Amino acid sequence: MAKMTAMDGNTAVAEVAHATNEVIAIYPITPSSVMGELCDIKSAKGQKNIWGSIPNVTEMQSEGGAAGAVHGSLTSGALTTTFTASQGLLLMIPNMYKIAGELTPTVFHVSARAIAAHALSIFGDHSDIMACRQTGWAMLAANNPQECADMALVAQAATLESRIPFLHYFDGFRTSHELNMVDIPSMDVMKAMITDELVAAHHNAGLSPEAPMMKGTAQNPDVYFQGRETVNKYYDACPGIVAKAMDKFGKLTGRKYSLFEYVGAKDAERVVVIMCSGAEVAESAVSRLVSEGEKVGVLKIRLFRPFSIAAFADALPKTVKSIAVLDRTKEPGALGEPLFQDVCTVFADKKVAAAFGGIPTITGGRYGLGSKEFTPAMVKAVFDGMKKATLKHGFTVGIKDDVTNLSLDYDPAWVVEGKNVFRAMFYGLGSDGTVGANKNTMKIISGDTDNMAQGYFVYDSKKAGSMTVSHVRFGKDIIRAPYLISKAQFVGCHLFAFLEKFDITGCVADGGVFLLNSPYSASEVWNHIPKEDQKNIVDKKLKFYVINASEIAKETGMGAHTNVIMQTAFFAISGVLPKDEAVASIKNAIKKSYSKKGEEVVKKNFAAVDRTIEALEEVKPGPVNSPITRKAPVPADSPDFVKNVLGMAIANRGDELPVSALTPGGVFPTGTSQYEKRNIAL
Amino acid sequence: MAKMTAMDGNTAVAEVAHATNEVIAIYPITPSSVMGELCDIKSAKGQKNIWGSIPNVTEMQSEGGAAGAVHGSLTSGALTTTFTASQGLLLMIPNMYKIAGELTPTVFHVSARAIAAHALSIFGDHSDIMACRQTGWAMLAANNPQECADMALVAQAATLESRIPFLHYFDGFRTSHELNMVDIPSMDVMKAMITDELVAAHHNAGLSPEAPMMKGTAQNPDVYFQGRETVNKYYDACPGIVAKAMDKFGKLTGRKYSLFEYVGAKDAERVVVIMCSGAEVAESAVSRLVSEGEKVGVLKIRLFRPFSIAAFADALPKTVKSIAVLDRTKEPGALGEPLFQDVCTVFADKKVAAAFGGIPTITGGRYGLGSKEFTPAMVKAVFDGMKKATLKHGFTVGIKDDVTNLSLDYDPAWVVEGKNVFRAMFYGLGSDGTVGANKNTMKIISGDTDNMAQGYFVYDSKKAGSMTVSHVRFGKDIIRAPYLISKAQFVGCHLFAFLEKFDITGCVADGGVFLLNSPYSASEVWNHIPKEDQKNIVDKKLKFYVINASEIAKETGMGAHTNVIMQTAFFAISGVLPKDEAVASIKNAIKKSYSKKGEEVVKKNFAAVDRTIEALEEVKPGPVNSPITRKAPVPADSPDFVKNVLGMAIANRGDELPVSALTPGGVFPTGTSQYEKRNIAL
Repeated sequence: MAKMTAMDGNTAVAEVAHATNEVIAIYPITPSSVMGELCDIKSAKGQKNIWGSIPNVTEMQSEGGAAGAVHGSLTSGALTTTFTASQGLLLMIPNMYKIAGELTPTVFHVSARAIAAHALSIFGDHSDIMACRQTGWAMLAANNPQECADMALVAQAATLESRIPFLHYFDGFRTSHELNMVDIPSMDVMKAMITDELVAAHHNAGLSPEAPMMKGTAQNPDVYFQGRETVNKYYDACPGIVAKAMDKFGKLTGRKYSLFEYVGAKDAERVVVIMCSGAEVAESAVSRLVSEGEKVGVLKIRLFRPFSIAAFADALPKTVKSIAVLDRTKEPGALGEPLFQDVCTVFADKKVAAAFGGIPTITGGRYGLGSKEFTPAMVKAVFDGMKKATLKHGFTVGIKDDVTNLSLDYDPAWVVEGKNVFRAMFYGLGSDGTVGANKNTMKIISGDTDNMAQGYFVYDSKKAGSMTVSHVRFGKDIIRAPYLISKAQFVGCHLFAFLEKFDITGCVADGGVFLLNSPYSASEVWNHIPKEDQKNIVDKKLKFYVINASEIAKETGMGAHTNVIMQTAFFAISGVLPKDEAVASIKNAIKKSYSKKGEEVVKKNFAAVDRTIEALEEVKPGPVNSPITRKAPVPADSPDFVKNVLGMAIANRGDELPVSALTPGGVFPTGTSQYEKRNIAL
Repeated sequence: MAKMTAMDGNTAVAEVAHATNEVIAIYPITPSSVMGELCDIKSAKGQKNIWGSIPNVTEMQSEGGAAGAVHGSLTSGALTTTFTASQGLLLMIPNMYKIAGELTPTVFHVSARAIAAHALSIFGDHSDIMACRQTGWAMLAANNPQECADMALVAQAATLESRIPFLHYFDGFRTSHELNMVDIPSMDVMKAMITDELVAAHHNAGLSPEAPMMKGTAQNPDVYFQGRETVNKYYDACPGIVAKAMDKFGKLTGRKYSLFEYVGAKDAERVVVIMCSGAEVAESAVSRLVSEGEKVGVLKIRLFRPFSIAAFADALPKTVKSIAVLDRTKEPGALGEPLFQDVCTVFADKKVAAAFGGIPTITGGRYGLGSKEFTPAMVKAVFDGMKKATLKHGFTVGIKDDVTNLSLDYDPAWVVEGKNVFRAMFYGLGSDGTVGANKNTMKIISGDTDNMAQGYFVYDSKKAGSMTVSHVRFGKDIIRAPYLISKAQFVGCHLFAFLEKFDITGCVADGGVFLLNSPYSASEVWNHIPKEDQKNIVDKKLKFYVINASEIAKETGMGAHTNVIMQTAFFAISGVLPKDEAVASIKNAIKKSYSKKGEEVVKKNFAAVDRTIEALEEVKPGPVNSPITRKAPVPADSPDFVKNVLGMAIANRGDELPVSALTPGGVFPTGTSQYEKRNIAL
């Protein structure tokens, strides 16, 4: 098996994009910035592309400038790329029309993100890429970090052969920032995919004084329309070229892809159509439901444009009676979201309808806007709605819509995750090193054992000084679960003060382990934690450990850095690795990370590790009678809106707010920050 | 009947937009600039809106800035608008999402224009507005200059009541620049439509220190999706609000509109779905075909967003078996263009399909890209294709596609224009005053007689010094013929040199009148015109007149200004007005135009008029044996591409070029301007 490394989608893209381009024009925007940064670092370090040259990476003054620079560079014949998202992508639209109209091969890598509407959201959905679907670009989806690398390469190969520019996209944050196991295609594989012939053709199509030509002219009504139709045959050929590139890639790497990928019962009657990370969520629900005898399936869109009606119809079981199309965007005023309209259009074709013995019921719905969680339970709710024929057009799933009543109820308790996966959550304080330590832990476990790792890190947008929650899974197989952990076998709370504010023990699975960074020892701590946590610990029979990480950090000269201590404690009690092996691995990692900072730093860290092993204590639960209870997020005398809406968000329970809680148009009262008491100091 | 004035669509919009707004942020872009310019002029002159204040008109540094200024101004509660097109509109997209998300009422008036792709085009199609269909804006179409005024007002009323921003659009050039008869709604009508209540609600919703609120925040995944769904009920209500505004407007003015407007046989089996000026073309074809017993009809889209499935299904005859959806845009790689996909989506609804006894055959096609002509003959070709069931999905009409063979053949000889309309064409030299004189002629005829006028002016993009062709129609009824004249009862050639280059006499209808500005007298001219023109004149039995306008201009001290002379000659021989009345009207117009330049100028013009009447001579055709023949547009030894492609364009025959003549990607050879011999001097 190929050597796999835990990395996020952005990194996976950067590995391929840097290796297969000559010019990279960038401008940072969340969540795409990492791709540009990594390419910049690579070139700064002198890393070469597959042709042995160092790509020229230039940061422009805006995304408009980046798109213009790309257009210019492409026109001169250089292999050129960029990375962007959201409003950044919108600024590229004018150049995108030109790049496509001029049949110029390029790949833009987009970590798909919401577009600011009633409010800005830095998080993921497909609003940005859908705003480009009319530009004439091919659009290719990646569903996980591995596919980010693979589709980046397939797109690069297909664009050069087809001359159609490609928008390669994947879910912002959920895929761009999820760490998962990735096998980056080797330089040899990349060279095999991007043949010298294709590169030469692109170079030769560039403007040059030796072979002058004119393009980018203005045309009058006499010839413009005819000129616009010259591109048809290139679009007709494109899906076949993509399929061919996928086949070649499959032979080279063993990873097989198709234009549309169906998973589920061969005789499925209910099918969900969806793309990107949501397709993996749907697949996991489908696997469970099919194992229970349900006739369901999921059709994953991989090549969204050019949309091959033949390949779509081919991939879909002819037994289908009901289709739910799930769009991760919202287009108010349209008859439905774009993927839904595409599926309707497919079946308006008389030949397709005949092949399916009539037109299935087609219902469109929305999910996951602005990185709203999307779980297998929600997919099940969609299948249930199809079964009962209660699915309403324009439904939503993942929220409670008590205004237009479009939301589906779902059962959060319906989980498909098995015992073969170890799930851990870590509650840290922004900038306290928790996330870094967890990434390190993933490296250790996926590198030193035969385990695969997956990690996703939830930051509050206040970032430093606010709560971060790490969701980390380990297992023998690659983990395809692009959603947060709901119940973890292990939960670490790295700041004692969190307990009074958040229901952290509520996240521990029955019989799981709860580790608390506590200023109180095992014998003292019980009555210093809220009654609610006492009850959780007792009811769920949790193993409860404390470590005074802050004290140990001070003792061992680590200052405020508690991350290595909490990481050590995790290894000591979670059982994912034998304790001794784990300690050796941590120390090994410390050496790698800090030896350039001097022997002293390494020693301090080693001392912290050893001290942690000694100091870790298990707590014997007492009676549920703590004098402390969890605090209300805002004072009792706060205005209603602050209590009912902002208070919920502060308590990390904003997901529970129904639509009616939010004011149309994104209006909020002013002067509300006075009610938020952060109290996160020890 | 209301007082109607000949004006273009841009002017009609400006009249309403200026009267119903408080702040206007502008940035010029063809073909929308006139709207902003007129508003600027109005405010500079101190013209007031319906509330008695002078709108603040500000030109920004780009369309991005204009959109930002509009957003800011709206947020402060001012009634605000802007005007744009094409790339300008693309730059507004980011702000459009926010304006819609924040439920802010405004109307953007867009003279729809192509977006630069393989080549730039300043001309009209729907690519720009279709690039905004996902932003959450209502979209309302106007099909002619009258509707530009009417829909501007309906949109302004509906946006204030619905809180959904409106994109009001109409065809760039074809409608924005066509002069037709318009009754601008009176200030009273505008006041009745925009009630004080609606205005107060908008003012009060603005940010103010007295009633502070917060909007435009950032939201996290916990609440963003719920917030995004708060707008649903506003979109649900919007079509009803528009319909109500249309009803009210109908009562006030007698002009009735609906969300979707059907014209044709009640039991139509074949229906074309289309919007903007093309809908008028389709209507004129349908009228003729229905009169011949064909079961055909046209459904005009008026409110494109929010798309009311109920209103659409309601408007369409239940007898329909075949629908052709005509889109004036191209989205390569999509399953079809957007209006086509909408119609497919309508019928994917099981209830709608049942109401129609099954799903009709739905075929999508493209027409009119970059202001390509769209005529009733092309509509007939579409109906014929439906009849024979030969219509292919993705067809084009108006061009010859010999590469992907998607174009329909049509019979240009199939014309629906009757004898009740007088058609005149004038070939002038850019900046020679021909267009101005024709606009003047339209004013005279529509003002001083009971005739209605329509005028459209085709400029070469070289503008000054190049050919301009004026297409002017007169008739007792309002003329709805938004396409060029193919055969005119009167053709004026204002530059003798044109004859050697262009087939101008080919445009005169059998038995029509041909007027030539000629340095040769009636007795001399015959053998100085090309043999091709001699043949046309003889074969078609044309009345042929000459006037030495350049000589008369010199004699009467008019210098190079021949426009008044040619205008006088037109009136003298066309017969649209009795000669004496016409002369009086022209002199009256001269007085109005030039009296502020002094008595001298008026006198010179009067002299030119009188001299023209005397000097005008009819030519007796001789034998068809001229030593002169029309010249090839480029030298015989030019390269093939120059001869076959550029030469055709130079000869004003670019429309005849098939798709195969154009290089994919918009590439042209260089160094070709050397082959164009303009030779336009006398």
